[in-house]
Amino acid sequence: MHYEGIVTVRFKKSVLEPQGQAVMLSLKETGHEDVDLIRVGKHIEVTLQAESEDMARQKLEKIAEELLYNPVMEVCEIQITGKA
Amino acid sequence: MHYEGIVTVRFKKSVLEPQGQAVMLSLKETGHEDVDLIRVGKHIEVTLQAESEDMARQKLEKIAEELLYNPVMEVCEIQITGKA
Repeated sequence: MHYEGIVTVRFKKSVLEPQGQAVMLSLKETGHEDVDLIRVGKHIEVTLQAESEDMARQKLEKIAEELLYNPVMEVCEIQITGKA
Repeated sequence: MHYEGIVTVRFKKSVLEPQGQAVMLSLKETGHEDVDLIRVGKHIEVTLQAESEDMARQKLEKIAEELLYNPVMEVCEIQITGKA
């Protein structure tokens, strides 16, 4: 079976996130003074083959740990969204 | 009032997405043959001031159009997730 999942990777709150800081600066320069905070993370869509939804989640967790995020600086959230 | 929102930016299905392709290649090399597709997009968290949820959404749409995505290659989804 083919399953679809989403891996959301965000920087930890304690870590300075440079891309968001850059966007904040541009917003202030273009008059958007009402923005308090912007943090940019990753939204990763994955389609994979697995025998069950549980297996799909386990595979996706393994892939995320190996390649998609850095546990020192980032947090990661995994959702299986449905069958493909 | 302070509102929290999420802007999700993804490449259009018709556009080749290089970061996802690179991850796919690494996965194949490390024995993850069961992954069909990976596409990497952006997950952008925003906190901003607005008079109402509708106003917050309008502001966020304007910011997204100005700075957060390229409508030629990407699609953008906006959610207001709550009050900060």
